[in-house]
Amino acid sequence: MSNQTFQPAALFAERMSIIPTSFIREILKVAARPEIISFAGGLPNPKFFPVDAIKAAADKVLTQDGRGTLQYTTTEGYQPLREYIAARYKQKQGLTISPDEILITNGSQQAIDLLGKIFVDKGNKILLELPGYLGTIQSFSAYQPDFGGVRLNEDGVDTEQLAHLYAKHRDIKLFSAIPNFQNPSGTSYSTEVRERVADVLESYNTVVIEDDPYGDLRFIGTRQPSLKHYLGEKAVMMGSFSKTVAPGLRLGWIVATKPIMEKLVVVKQAADLHSNYFAQRVMHQYLIDNDVDAHIATICKAYGEQRDAMLTAIEEFFPSEVRVTKPEGGMFLWATLPEGVVSMDLFDKAIKQNVAFVPGKPFYVEADDYRGGGENTMRLNFSNADAATIREGIKRLGVVMEEMLVAVA
Amino acid sequence: MSNQTFQPAALFAERMSIIPTSFIREILKVAARPEIISFAGGLPNPKFFPVDAIKAAADKVLTQDGRGTLQYTTTEGYQPLREYIAARYKQKQGLTISPDEILITNGSQQAIDLLGKIFVDKGNKILLELPGYLGTIQSFSAYQPDFGGVRLNEDGVDTEQLAHLYAKHRDIKLFSAIPNFQNPSGTSYSTEVRERVADVLESYNTVVIEDDPYGDLRFIGTRQPSLKHYLGEKAVMMGSFSKTVAPGLRLGWIVATKPIMEKLVVVKQAADLHSNYFAQRVMHQYLIDNDVDAHIATICKAYGEQRDAMLTAIEEFFPSEVRVTKPEGGMFLWATLPEGVVSMDLFDKAIKQNVAFVPGKPFYVEADDYRGGGENTMRLNFSNADAATIREGIKRLGVVMEEMLVAVA
Repeated sequence: MSNQTFQPAALFAERMSIIPTSFIREILKVAARPEIISFAGGLPNPKFFPVDAIKAAADKVLTQDGRGTLQYTTTEGYQPLREYIAARYKQKQGLTISPDEILITNGSQQAIDLLGKIFVDKGNKILLELPGYLGTIQSFSAYQPDFGGVRLNEDGVDTEQLAHLYAKHRDIKLFSAIPNFQNPSGTSYSTEVRERVADVLESYNTVVIEDDPYGDLRFIGTRQPSLKHYLGEKAVMMGSFSKTVAPGLRLGWIVATKPIMEKLVVVKQAADLHSNYFAQRVMHQYLIDNDVDAHIATICKAYGEQRDAMLTAIEEFFPSEVRVTKPEGGMFLWATLPEGVVSMDLFDKAIKQNVAFVPGKPFYVEADDYRGGGENTMRLNFSNADAATIREGIKRLGVVMEEMLVAVA
Repeated sequence: MSNQTFQPAALFAERMSIIPTSFIREILKVAARPEIISFAGGLPNPKFFPVDAIKAAADKVLTQDGRGTLQYTTTEGYQPLREYIAARYKQKQGLTISPDEILITNGSQQAIDLLGKIFVDKGNKILLELPGYLGTIQSFSAYQPDFGGVRLNEDGVDTEQLAHLYAKHRDIKLFSAIPNFQNPSGTSYSTEVRERVADVLESYNTVVIEDDPYGDLRFIGTRQPSLKHYLGEKAVMMGSFSKTVAPGLRLGWIVATKPIMEKLVVVKQAADLHSNYFAQRVMHQYLIDNDVDAHIATICKAYGEQRDAMLTAIEEFFPSEVRVTKPEGGMFLWATLPEGVVSMDLFDKAIKQNVAFVPGKPFYVEADDYRGGGENTMRLNFSNADAATIREGIKRLGVVMEEMLVAVA
């Protein structure tokens, strides 16, 4: 019948050959087997989800305004939720942001997609961190940019390389950064690096995307000034409730000034009219009825202890040649094996010992200025296992690493 | 400071000059004034939202599996919800669809956006109905297609014109259709038109997007076979819970066979990881714990009575030269004024009499094969007002129409 003429592969848009399929999806499928200790995921610990408080919030909004809560709403999002976010920026970071400069999105993942849509034409130059967040690589790929990569050092992005790339290309549209407890590396930008990033970007017509899903999850030290603090409207900030409240509610946001916000609202409306209104109402009710800071402090204490357990076990069990980052917050740390040791091979051996992680290679964009690399790196998640499990998993990984190092040497 | 160098307008992607800003947003702002009888919106009647049943469902899922409900989940969507949708296609339409062929989206609006993303390169030819759904025009515009338009007749799309366009261009990638109670026109495809559409498309490598948000809201007659019934995998179907349950939960879906579904999952993940999981769980619990068919029958009875009230009042109060569609379901009907009477002018006069509607012009794509048109048309929504209010609003509109017809004559 009609199937004889149907060749869908011939109909797909060009971008479909460019968007990377998620390697991590496959990793996570393997890592989900119950016998495996998994450091592969990127999940917040469900033990801390405020289930009862969310239930009370859902009951309250449906009781007080059920019909309103279940109806269509404005594209920008629930006004009191936008006001809450703006007030929190003022309170926690001293940033003056109007609720009108906030758009509610389906997690910060959608924020990335919308920003790609409004800014990126095919072939436009955009910069990501190396290693960079996979979701950003995936989302932006759909708009067929020319990716560039900027190395991360221990104190944040390499500002010399950043300056070099901006000077060389001059027409870089976006630089996408996660300055706090970056995914995947766990590194944070020092104050000095933030200042230098601002200095570099000052003279270019460019946007910095300041993605900050983990900023509240700090166990050590104090919050650093945001890039927006230095760069004003050049910085588009993103935030998320996924790590502090619950990811299943899929709520994040973008902060942008008016000219950019007007475009974001157009593409958000075209993308899905508005974010889940029921979830927005429940989230807002939860936020105003509960001590959110106490809740976040509980999460930070636990994740901090888990991070310590992981670093202690690494010290004890990993070969001394393996370098790791020491994150001050967030959910991940990053290990670098000696040159020539391939973490994908390590993964295959580790799985046989029932322990999993994510090999680092997919976090490196294939950019004109950067080909390959990252083969000897790996991401370890510490948010989703208790200290004893972490110790056992790291011990197993250490044994496999020792074997590989001997084989390579 | 940095603001001197910041010219965001120079950074926006080319597509941003193409996506139409929503004219309807402005209309709806005016129509929202409380003294106005509005036939402008496209909202389901909140009187029928199953508030208590949703509240019970939310309580149940959070009590039984709170942590699971609030965690990240798979991109494809909640498996039991996909199974429910598949079973319903079998039960109501005799269509055999695997749950694996269903992707849960943020309302069917997101489904349109994802389909645009996987299929449409800049300059690709795609066909919409004339008049067409504004959300489709907006979403697809982001991918910069070359739009074509196919007239709607009383019994559905003009299949002669459809055949002509396919024969002329040969490389039309998509034809986007709403065969049941279309938004904006209220028209439905007859069985014969469906068969002829299938005949036309049979020999081309093309996709028909069969958008069906209103299909369950039938007051008159019986359900017609879907285009998918005739076209198999060439038809990508879309559905929504927004009109039968509640739009604030933002849940719709796409039905597509494996090669297309694989691509959809990639772009869905890049777009927002997955649809709101809490809402998916609540929706599924609601669907299995309640008599959904009885609920839909209640809505159909009410909308049918409101549609009758509107047609009766139109018969009584509109000038006889005004033609209207007689929808068998859905939420809208379409009026065509005599040539030369501009519905935008009518809108300005109607607002002064505290009655609102949506002028028809924005529903016509500016296509190569079709420039302009629609100035004398208008959309009237009947789902969101009671019979007495509808009668009063139509009466006021009739007076303004009479005045305009006299002025034109």
